[in-house]
Amino acid sequence: MRIESDSLGTKAVDDAAYYGIHTERARENFPVTSRPVDGRLVKNLILVKEACANANAETGRLAADKHRMIVGACEAILDDFDRFASELRTPAIQGGAGTSTNMNANEVIANLAAEMAGAKKGTYELIHPNDDVNMAQSTNDVYPTAGHMALVEYTTDLLDQLEKTASSFLKLAHEHRFSLKMGRTQLEDAVPTTFGKEFHAYYRVLMRDYKRIEAASASLLEVPLGGTAIGTSICATQEYCDAVVPELRRLSGMPLTQAEDLSDAVQNTDCYVALSSAYKNLATDLIKITNDLRLLGSGPQAGLHELELPKVQAGSSIMPGKVNPVIPEVCAQVAFQVVGNDAAIALASSSGQLELNAFEPVMFNDLFEDASLLRGALLTLKKNCLDHLKVNEQRCAEMAAHSAGLATALSPTIGYRAAAKIAQEAVATGESIEVLLKEKINIPDSKIKELLNPQNLLQPANSSVKLETATMLKR
Amino acid sequence: MRIESDSLGTKAVDDAAYYGIHTERARENFPVTSRPVDGRLVKNLILVKEACANANAETGRLAADKHRMIVGACEAILDDFDRFASELRTPAIQGGAGTSTNMNANEVIANLAAEMAGAKKGTYELIHPNDDVNMAQSTNDVYPTAGHMALVEYTTDLLDQLEKTASSFLKLAHEHRFSLKMGRTQLEDAVPTTFGKEFHAYYRVLMRDYKRIEAASASLLEVPLGGTAIGTSICATQEYCDAVVPELRRLSGMPLTQAEDLSDAVQNTDCYVALSSAYKNLATDLIKITNDLRLLGSGPQAGLHELELPKVQAGSSIMPGKVNPVIPEVCAQVAFQVVGNDAAIALASSSGQLELNAFEPVMFNDLFEDASLLRGALLTLKKNCLDHLKVNEQRCAEMAAHSAGLATALSPTIGYRAAAKIAQEAVATGESIEVLLKEKINIPDSKIKELLNPQNLLQPANSSVKLETATMLKR
Amino acid sequence: MRIESDSLGTKAVDDAAYYGIHTERARENFPVTSRPVDGRLVKNLILVKEACANANAETGRLAADKHRMIVGACEAILDDFDRFASELRTPAIQGGAGTSTNMNANEVIANLAAEMAGAKKGTYELIHPNDDVNMAQSTNDVYPTAGHMALVEYTTDLLDQLEKTASSFLKLAHEHRFSLKMGRTQLEDAVPTTFGKEFHAYYRVLMRDYKRIEAASASLLEVPLGGTAIGTSICATQEYCDAVVPELRRLSGMPLTQAEDLSDAVQNTDCYVALSSAYKNLATDLIKITNDLRLLGSGPQAGLHELELPKVQAGSSIMPGKVNPVIPEVCAQVAFQVVGNDAAIALASSSGQLELNAFEPVMFNDLFEDASLLRGALLTLKKNCLDHLKVNEQRCAEMAAHSAGLATALSPTIGYRAAAKIAQEAVATGESIEVLLKEKINIPDSKIKELLNPQNLLQPANSSVKLETATMLKR
Amino acid sequence: MRIESDSLGTKAVDDAAYYGIHTERARENFPVTSRPVDGRLVKNLILVKEACANANAETGRLAADKHRMIVGACEAILDDFDRFASELRTPAIQGGAGTSTNMNANEVIANLAAEMAGAKKGTYELIHPNDDVNMAQSTNDVYPTAGHMALVEYTTDLLDQLEKTASSFLKLAHEHRFSLKMGRTQLEDAVPTTFGKEFHAYYRVLMRDYKRIEAASASLLEVPLGGTAIGTSICATQEYCDAVVPELRRLSGMPLTQAEDLSDAVQNTDCYVALSSAYKNLATDLIKITNDLRLLGSGPQAGLHELELPKVQAGSSIMPGKVNPVIPEVCAQVAFQVVGNDAAIALASSSGQLELNAFEPVMFNDLFEDASLLRGALLTLKKNCLDHLKVNEQRCAEMAAHSAGLATALSPTIGYRAAAKIAQEAVATGESIEVLLKEKINIPDSKIKELLNPQNLLQPANSSVKLETATMLKR
Repeated sequence: MRIESDSLGTKAVDDAAYYGIHTERARENFPVTSRPVDGRLVKNLILVKEACANANAETGRLAADKHRMIVGACEAILDDFDRFASELRTPAIQGGAGTSTNMNANEVIANLAAEMAGAKKGTYELIHPNDDVNMAQSTNDVYPTAGHMALVEYTTDLLDQLEKTASSFLKLAHEHRFSLKMGRTQLEDAVPTTFGKEFHAYYRVLMRDYKRIEAASASLLEVPLGGTAIGTSICATQEYCDAVVPELRRLSGMPLTQAEDLSDAVQNTDCYVALSSAYKNLATDLIKITNDLRLLGSGPQAGLHELELPKVQAGSSIMPGKVNPVIPEVCAQVAFQVVGNDAAIALASSSGQLELNAFEPVMFNDLFEDASLLRGALLTLKKNCLDHLKVNEQRCAEMAAHSAGLATALSPTIGYRAAAKIAQEAVATGESIEVLLKEKINIPDSKIKELLNPQNLLQPANSSVKLETATMLKR
Repeated sequence: MRIESDSLGTKAVDDAAYYGIHTERARENFPVTSRPVDGRLVKNLILVKEACANANAETGRLAADKHRMIVGACEAILDDFDRFASELRTPAIQGGAGTSTNMNANEVIANLAAEMAGAKKGTYELIHPNDDVNMAQSTNDVYPTAGHMALVEYTTDLLDQLEKTASSFLKLAHEHRFSLKMGRTQLEDAVPTTFGKEFHAYYRVLMRDYKRIEAASASLLEVPLGGTAIGTSICATQEYCDAVVPELRRLSGMPLTQAEDLSDAVQNTDCYVALSSAYKNLATDLIKITNDLRLLGSGPQAGLHELELPKVQAGSSIMPGKVNPVIPEVCAQVAFQVVGNDAAIALASSSGQLELNAFEPVMFNDLFEDASLLRGALLTLKKNCLDHLKVNEQRCAEMAAHSAGLATALSPTIGYRAAAKIAQEAVATGESIEVLLKEKINIPDSKIKELLNPQNLLQPANSSVKLETATMLKR
Repeated sequence: MRIESDSLGTKAVDDAAYYGIHTERARENFPVTSRPVDGRLVKNLILVKEACANANAETGRLAADKHRMIVGACEAILDDFDRFASELRTPAIQGGAGTSTNMNANEVIANLAAEMAGAKKGTYELIHPNDDVNMAQSTNDVYPTAGHMALVEYTTDLLDQLEKTASSFLKLAHEHRFSLKMGRTQLEDAVPTTFGKEFHAYYRVLMRDYKRIEAASASLLEVPLGGTAIGTSICATQEYCDAVVPELRRLSGMPLTQAEDLSDAVQNTDCYVALSSAYKNLATDLIKITNDLRLLGSGPQAGLHELELPKVQAGSSIMPGKVNPVIPEVCAQVAFQVVGNDAAIALASSSGQLELNAFEPVMFNDLFEDASLLRGALLTLKKNCLDHLKVNEQRCAEMAAHSAGLATALSPTIGYRAAAKIAQEAVATGESIEVLLKEKINIPDSKIKELLNPQNLLQPANSSVKLETATMLKR
Repeated sequence: MRIESDSLGTKAVDDAAYYGIHTERARENFPVTSRPVDGRLVKNLILVKEACANANAETGRLAADKHRMIVGACEAILDDFDRFASELRTPAIQGGAGTSTNMNANEVIANLAAEMAGAKKGTYELIHPNDDVNMAQSTNDVYPTAGHMALVEYTTDLLDQLEKTASSFLKLAHEHRFSLKMGRTQLEDAVPTTFGKEFHAYYRVLMRDYKRIEAASASLLEVPLGGTAIGTSICATQEYCDAVVPELRRLSGMPLTQAEDLSDAVQNTDCYVALSSAYKNLATDLIKITNDLRLLGSGPQAGLHELELPKVQAGSSIMPGKVNPVIPEVCAQVAFQVVGNDAAIALASSSGQLELNAFEPVMFNDLFEDASLLRGALLTLKKNCLDHLKVNEQRCAEMAAHSAGLATALSPTIGYRAAAKIAQEAVATGESIEVLLKEKINIPDSKIKELLNPQNLLQPANSSVKLETATMLKR
C-alpha cells in the first residue's frame, strides 16, 4: 500500500492501483450500490480530458511534455479500456455532483502517465491530477459534457433499434392490409377494421416517438465545456474556452457546440427531463401496444386469439402446453421502469439549487438504464415476436361477419333507432344482422348486400389510410 | 368600501364583507385556481377557534365578554355555514402554509362578533383577529389540526362506501360460488376456477385497502394544537396547552390527542404521504378490478363476455345498440388521478424545509379530492354495476369444458410431457381433451371421467377458499 | 317533467331542459366530481357541430332546412354561452370516452333548434340528436377534435404569460448584470458570479420550456375529424371527409389539418403525454427557480437575504412583522400538481386498448387544469414578485469579498494544493484571502490585486454570457 | 454441447451446464438487462423446493429415493451458493411471471441430483424438472413465496440500519438539547428553537417510517405456497397443501403462514405496493432531512453554517478547500430513485389481469433495489455524517439573539400590531429588539429581560418535547 494525501489528510491506496486517494474516499462514502458509473460516460470523459489537454497545449498553458504524457495516457486507456475498467470505477449513484468520477479519471490518467514515464504512482510530481489533468476544467463542465456524449451514443443505438422495430409493424401493415377484423372500442365490438390499419397505427405512433427522442437528443449536442466552475470560465483563458469544444468535436466526431450561456448550461438540467419525457412517451406507447398484442393473442380457446404470437418458451412449470406472451410482458415491465425512472429524474432535476444541480449522477444512471432497457425490449419485440407474428385470418373474418357492430353501417339508411333495435335483437337471439334486416326492414336484398359488404364497411377509410410505402424517416 | 390596514399598508374591502384585508390580499396573490379551500377544513377550523377561545377563557387569559363574543360568532357560522361560505373562501392552492385560510377565519369571526355586538366591521376594536381570535395560536398548529379533522371525516365517508362496495363483491362471491369458468394467467387459458373465487379475491383485496386506509387515518387523530409557532408553544401558557386538545375533543366528538412532540408534528407531513399511499393502493387495486370487469364483459360477440355488465347508457353516438362499460371506466380514471395526486403529495411532502412544510395546502387539496373521487367511484361501481351484474353461466361453462387448460389435471397421472402433447393437439385440431385422451393414452374411461370432472379440477381448492360468511370487518 | 326514451328505456327529464335522456343518465352514472367538463371544450364542440352540419349540407346529405336549424342553434349557443352553460354540463371525469359530452351537445342543439322552430323539446322529430346533429360523426372523432382545439387555446394563453414572465427575468438580468454575488454549488460557497448571470439562466430555461410547449401544442392542430368510428370514416362519404376539416378551419380560424392516418389518430393519445411532459418540464424548472428565490430571499437576519422579495401579505398570524415568500410557494405547489397530473396522464394514455383510448376525459381535465394553474402561477410570479424584486447589492458584495471561494482564482498561479491551504486557513481563522496571501505566499501585491479583482474573477465569462438584448422569441 | 428438448423443440446447451433448455431460452428472450435475478430470491426458492419435496415425500407422493436426491441437490446448492450462482441466473426483468426463474431452479436441481447420482445431465430420467422437482407446485405459488421471503430478509436488514441511524439523531438530540438556534418557517426567521428539538423531530419521523415498513413487511409472511396454478391447488393433494407451509416455516425459521384465500394471494400484488409506499415514505422524509442538513451546513461563509458536516472528501476538482455535503447528496439521490421505483411498482401492480399479475419480476427487482439503496444510504449517513456532526453553537446563538423573530414573544404583552412595528424597525435599522423595546414601549426593563430570555422563549415547549431516553423500539 502507498500513502496518498489530500487537503483532508492521508489514506492508504493499493500500490498497484492507478486510482488514488479521491477514488478511495468515494468508495467509502457511497456504499449504496454495486453498480459502477457507466463505461460510456467514463470513456467520453477520457476523451474530454484529451481534448482539454490539446486545447491547453495549443493555447500555450500546458507544457509540451506534460501534454504528451497526458495524451499518451488517455489514448492508452481508450485503446484498451477493459484493462482499466476496474480502476475507472466509482459508484453509479454518488454525492458530489460527479466530482468523484472526474477525480478518478484525473488520478488514473496522472498515475498512468507517470508510470509510462517511468515514475512512481501516487506522487503526482510529473503530472498532477488537478493542476495538469484537470487544468482549466471543473467537474461542473467536464462531467455533464461526458454525460451528454454518452447519452447521445445510447440514444443513437436506441433510435436505430426503434426504427427497425417500427418497420416490422409497417411490414405487417402491408401484409395484412386486407385482413378484415372486428374493431373494438372500450373492449366492446365496434365496427370492422383491418389488421393493416391496426399495425399501421402502431408504426405511426412509434415513429412519432422516434422524432420526439431524436429532438430531445439533439439538444444534448450543446455542452457546457469551457464553463469551468458554475459557468464563469474561472481559471480558463478566453483562447482555451474558444478552442476546447472544436477540439472535442474533432476528436469525437460528434457535432458538438458550446452552450451559449454557460451559467445556464451548468445549472439547468431540463434537457435530461426532456429526454426522459421522450423515453417515457415511448414507454407508454409500448405498454399500450404490447397490451394490445397480448389481448389479441389471448386464448387460445377462451380468448380473442386473432393473433398467433410466436411460441418462444414453454409457458408454465405446471400447465402443460401453455404458452405465454413473454415478449410483450418483458417489454411492458421495461416500460414500467422507464415511467418510474422518469419520476426519479423529474424529482432530481427539480431539486437543483442555485448554480448547480448536484444530482446529475442519478439522472445519468437512469437515462442510461432507460435507453438500454428500451433498446433491449424493442430488439426482442422485433426478433422474437413481430417477425414471426401470424394473423388468424379465419377467426377474424368470422367474428367480424357475425358482429352486431355491422348495424352501424345501416344507420345512415334506416336511422339510429331502428339500427339499434336490429343490433340488440342480433345480440339477444344470435341471429345475423343480414337475416334480421330481411325480416324486419323493408329494403331490397341488393341494398342489404351492398350495405353489409365488408369492404364497403371500410369506406371511405380504405382510401384514407394511405399506407406509407416509403418510411417516414426520409428526413 | 371600507379601508383596512395591516403591517404592510392599507386596502379597500367591500363594506358588507365579514372578511378583511388579509383575505383580500390572498385573493390577489393566488389567482391560480377558482377552487376554494374545502368547506370541511374551514368548518373544523371554526371549531378549533371555538375550542381555543374556551381554553383561553378557562385558563384565565381571555376576558369573559370577548370569550362570549368569539364563541357566539363561531356558533353562528357553524349553525348556518352556507350563509358564510362565500366569505370563508381563500384559494385552495395558496402560499403561506395556510396563513390566509387562518386569517380569513380570524377576520370573519372578529367582524361577525363585532356586528353581533352592534359595532362596525373592520375596526377590530372589540375583537382583534390576531390578539383575540388567534390568541395562543399559530397557523402552524391550527391549520393542520383542522386539516386532520377534515381528513378524518372524508376518510370515514370513504371507508363507509368502501365496505359497502366490497360487500357487494362478497355477495357476488356467494351467489356464484359454483359458477365454473376458465381461469386465465397472462391472458392465456390456464385452469378452471369459479366466479366465486374471482369475486372473493376482489372482496379481500378491497378489505385490505380498508384496513390500510383506516390505519393511516387513525394517525391523523394526533394533532399539533397547542404547539403554536414551530411547535414551541410560544405565546401560550402551559395550562392552555394542556386544556385545548381535550376541549376540542369534547366539542368535535373526535378522539383527538395532542402530538407528543410538537416540533415534529408541526414540521413533518409523513402522515399525509402515508394516507395518500393507502388511497393509492386502493386506486391501483381498483384499476386492476375494473380492468378485469371490462375484460370479462367484453364483446358481446367478439369478446370474452363471461360477465354481463348492466346497461346504464347508450354507448355510442354513432354505433346503434353499442353499450360500453362506462362505470368501470370512470372508476379507472378516478384511480389514475389518485395515483397522480400521490406523486404530487410525495413531492410536496419531501419539499418541507426546517421547522415547517409550507406546502400543506396542495396536500390537503389533493387528499380531499382523492377521498371524494374514490367514494364517488365506489358508489357508482356498487350501485350502477355490481348490484346488477350477471354471469353468463353457459358461456363460462362451455369455455371451461373445451379448454386445453384441462390438460394440467392430467399431469400428475400421465406426466408433464405427455400432457403437453395432448394439450397442443387439442389446440391444433379443435378436438376435446377427453376424446384425445381416449385415443392416445392407455387409461380407463372411468379414470378420465374422474380426472376431467370440473368440480375435481377445483380440488383441494374448494376447501381452501373458505368463503367468509361474516365480513372481515368485525373489529 | 317530460318522458324521453332511448334504446335502454325511458327517463323523466325536466321539461325546461334543453338536454335530454343521455345527459340525464350521465349525471346519474358519474357522481364522482362536481367539476363539469371544461367550457372551452364544449364551445369548440359546438363549433365542430356547426362545421359538420355545413359539410354535410354542402355535400348534399343534410337537407337545407335541417342545416339551417342546426346552424341556428349552434350560433345561438355560441352567441350567449352563459345562458346554456348549465345545460351543457356533464361531469369532467366520465366513462364512455366522451360520449356523454357529445350526446349532451347533440341534445341541446336538437332541442334548441326544435324550440326555435316552435316545436316541443324532447320529441326530436324535426331534428334528431343522432341522425341529424351527429350526422357522419362519432364521439371518437368529434370529442378529441374539440379537445385539441381547447388545448391549443389554453396553451396559447399559457405561452403568452410564460413569455412575459421570462421577459421579467431578462429585464432583471440586464439591470443586475454587474451585481457581483457569491456563487454556490451544492449550497457551499463556490466562486463569484453576478445576479445578471443568475437571472439570465432563469430566462433561458423558461424560454426552452416555451419552445417545448409550443412544439407539443403544434401537433394538436392535427385532428381526427372525419374519422368517425375508430377512424374508418364509416357512415361518412368521401366528399364529407374531405370538406369537414377545411370548414372547421374556416369557422375557427385555427390552422387545423386532418390527421393522415385516422385509425392512428383516434386510438393513440401520445400527443397528450407529450404536451403534459412539456408542462412538467416547465413545472420542474419552476420548482427549481422558486426554490432559489426563496433561498436567496431567506432571512431577513438568519438567512442569505441576497434578494428582497416584495412583501405581499403579512406572513404570520402569530409572528409579528414576519413576511413569507408566498408567491414562490404557490408557484411550487402548482408545479407539484402538474408533476402529479403528468403521472395520471401517462397512466391514462398507457391504458388505451385496441382502437380507442377511453380515458381521454381525465387527460383533458388534467391538461386544462395544468395550463390554467401554470398560467396563474406565472402571472402572480411576474406581477407580485419579479416586477418588484430587489437585490441587496451590499450584502451580496460583502459575502463575495470575504469568501474563501476566491482561492479558486489563485489556483492557476500557486497550484491547487497551496490554494486549498489558504482557503482552509481563511475559513478557520476568518482572515481574508488577501491578507493570508500576502502573509503566506511570495507573490507581488500588484498580482494579488489583479487576481482578486472581482471583475477578473468573472473572466472570460463576462464575454461568454452574451446577454440577449432581443428576445429569443423572434421566430 | 448437449441437445435438450421441450414442448417447443430442441436447443443446444453447454455440456457442463446444470441449467437446461428453459434457462437457455430465457437468456435469448430477455436481452434487456445484464442484471440477474436477485440471489436472495433464488436461495429462498431453493429452500422452497426442498420444503415441497419434503411435503411431497411426507404425504406419500414423492418416492423416497427421488426425495433424497432432490433434497441432496438443494442442500448442496445452499451449502455452496457461490459455486452455482452463475448457473442460477435468469434476467432480473423477464416475461412469464417468473417461470424462467422457477424452471431454472428446477433444471439445476434436477441436473445436479442426476450428477450426484452418477447420471448424465440433460436427460432428466432420474429426476424430472417438472414432474419431480416442481411436483405439486406452480410458478404462481413458489415464485412469490420465495420473493416474499427475500423481501422479509431485505427489509429486516433495512430496519436494523434504520434504527441505528435514527438512534444517532436521538443521541444528537440529547447532546444538543440546550443549543438555542433560530427556527425558520418558509425559510424566513421565525422564533427560537433548539437543535435538540430539531434532531428529535428527525428521530421521530424516522421511527414512524420504521413502524410503517415493519407493518408492511409483516404482511409478507403470508405466502401463497400450496395454491399451485391460480390458487386452485390443482395437481396438489389436500394433505400436501396442509403440510408444505409448516415445513417451509421449519426449514427457514421464518414465521410464515399460508394465505387464507389462495386465489386472492396469487392474483393480488397490493402487498408490494404497500411495502413500496412505506419505503417511499421513508424516502420523502430522507429528502427533507438531508436537505435540511445541507441547508444548515451551507456556507461556510456565505451560508447558514449552523451545522458543521464532517469533511469526507475534497469537494471540488477546481475549487481548492471546498468541501461538499456529499453524504446527504447521495442519500437524496437514493431517495429519488425509491420514489421513482414506487411509480413503476404501482404501474406494474395495477396492470395485473384476472388470475395473475405477470409483472412480479420488475416489482421484486425494484423492491430489492429500494431496500439495498436505502440501507446503504442510511449506513453512510450515520457513519460518515451524523456520528461526526458538529453544531456551531456560537453562530446559532448569535443569529437567534439578533433576530426580529423575538418580537413574537412580545405579542401577548404589547399586542400583534405594536410587535410587528418593532420587528419591522429591527430589520430596517439592524437595531436589536431589546434596544427598540426600551426606546419605543413603556415597559419595565425587568419585564423586557424576562420576555427576551431565550429559555423563556421555549416555554412551555421545553416541557412538551419529552425527549425519549429509551428508544421507541421497545416492542
